Amino acid sequence: MKNNNKKSLSSACILVIGDEVLSGRTEDKNINFIAKRCDSIGVSVNEVRIIPDDKETIKNTVLECYKKFDYIFTTGGIGPTHDDITTECIASAFNLDVEINPEALRRLKNHYKKLNVELNDARTKMAKIPIGAKLIDNPVSSAPGFIVENIYVLPGVPKILQAMFHNLEDEIKGITNIVSKNIIVYSPEGEIADFLENIQNEFVDVSIGSYPYFRPPDVGTNIVLRSIDKNLINDSAIAICRKLKENKILFEE
Amino acid sequence: MKNNNKKSLSSACILVIGDEVLSGRTEDKNINFIAKRCDSIGVSVNEVRIIPDDKETIKNTVLECYKKFDYIFTTGGIGPTHDDITTECIASAFNLDVEINPEALRRLKNHYKKLNVELNDARTKMAKIPIGAKLIDNPVSSAPGFIVENIYVLPGVPKILQAMFHNLEDEIKGITNIVSKNIIVYSPEGEIADFLENIQNEFVDVSIGSYPYFRPPDVGTNIVLRSIDKNLINDSAIAICRKLKENKILFEE
Repeated sequence: MKNNNKKSLSSACILVIGDEVLSGRTEDKNINFIAKRCDSIGVSVNEVRIIPDDKETIKNTVLECYKKFDYIFTTGGIGPTHDDITTECIASAFNLDVEINPEALRRLKNHYKKLNVELNDARTKMAKIPIGAKLIDNPVSSAPGFIVENIYVLPGVPKILQAMFHNLEDEIKGITNIVSKNIIVYSPEGEIADFLENIQNEFVDVSIGSYPYFRPPDVGTNIVLRSIDKNLINDSAIAICRKLKENKILFEE
Repeated sequence: MKNNNKKSLSSACILVIGDEVLSGRTEDKNINFIAKRCDSIGVSVNEVRIIPDDKETIKNTVLECYKKFDYIFTTGGIGPTHDDITTECIASAFNLDVEINPEALRRLKNHYKKLNVELNDARTKMAKIPIGAKLIDNPVSSAPGFIVENIYVLPGVPKILQAMFHNLEDEIKGITNIVSKNIIVYSPEGEIADFLENIQNEFVDVSIGSYPYFRPPDVGTNIVLRSIDKNLINDSAIAICRKLKENKILFEE
């Protein structure tokens, strides 16, 4: 798909931090969630990286990425155990000290008091936040995420991440007037590739994606048109449907 | 999780190429599959990147990554349509020309002949392979992947990728004598973090991972021990279980 829309969109990078994802033990559920939410609020995810729980790797990756994108979302590594090292790595990347954040500690105390659970040293670690960072509310389990520079530090547990992300969406501004249109083609990509390329060349401000599906005996292609210009979407869709009809290819708009 | 095992393992990087994954439209299914398979054949996936269908980005990412890892697996972008640009980008990265590979063409001809489907120009594009590349067999839909340097170029459709990957496993050698052990703890991470860190420090050649689960009202932690030394796994597991019992925390080995 050509990315002609992306110039006018805010850009984002997702950094998934976790050996458990790299080993295949855990299947990541956060990338697709964040990608979809960003898409719907007009932020374009331009890169995702999954990296190990390794101090130098986390620090270097954050420093490499934060200047390239408007938003960085990290997931994972802010829990209470020894392998949760995201906070210290982010702090180290920006030469910040980490301290017990009084507001974060207050929230944790309230939360564990309600649960009648001890706020021990390990849990108190979750109140350690880089000095100057802004907290991200956690309506599920209270331990906050935080924002340093343009880096939004989020947990790895999907249900908690999702609740926290929804709260952030108002402040992650993007262009929200992207129009998209799907055409389901009941033929494999190879049947439509030639004329689709011509139409893409004709409509440079429409991003035309072609996504084969393969569920034998059904094979086919989803064509996805995206643009900030509704008229161009309509015109390019008409051009595609005309070609599909000419070639006697079944489809559904 | 500390990665003490990784020094002795072959390393791999997965490059997922596709705007449709970045936009959230398609949920990637290949990362977890490749990660699990690599894990089981003793190859350590040390990084994953999801990048857009953009020529410069693909080329630069490939050139950046291929020297850092023993294996690079790319997924996506080798179909017949205009947005399938992986082959030309890989070729361009290594200054290789792309030509119709006679063997690839023969396979495509056979395949489409059997299906009684025309091998048109678009489909013939799938026989275009960088000169000198080794083909990767595709037992499902015939269009081959290929190997350039240490880069294994695979398709994005999960069922096809999976069949192709299984065929590759014999030549992707790794250390396969990693032993792992799981302990399910019926308490949240915060209860066990302190002593787990001490045990990790004691057993530096065991990688101890702590993975919270959160399915209210059930919360708990999976502890995963991994090492190439079975005795160390047993000793560290005994140390953990002793601490769990001391702290009256329920668990299951």
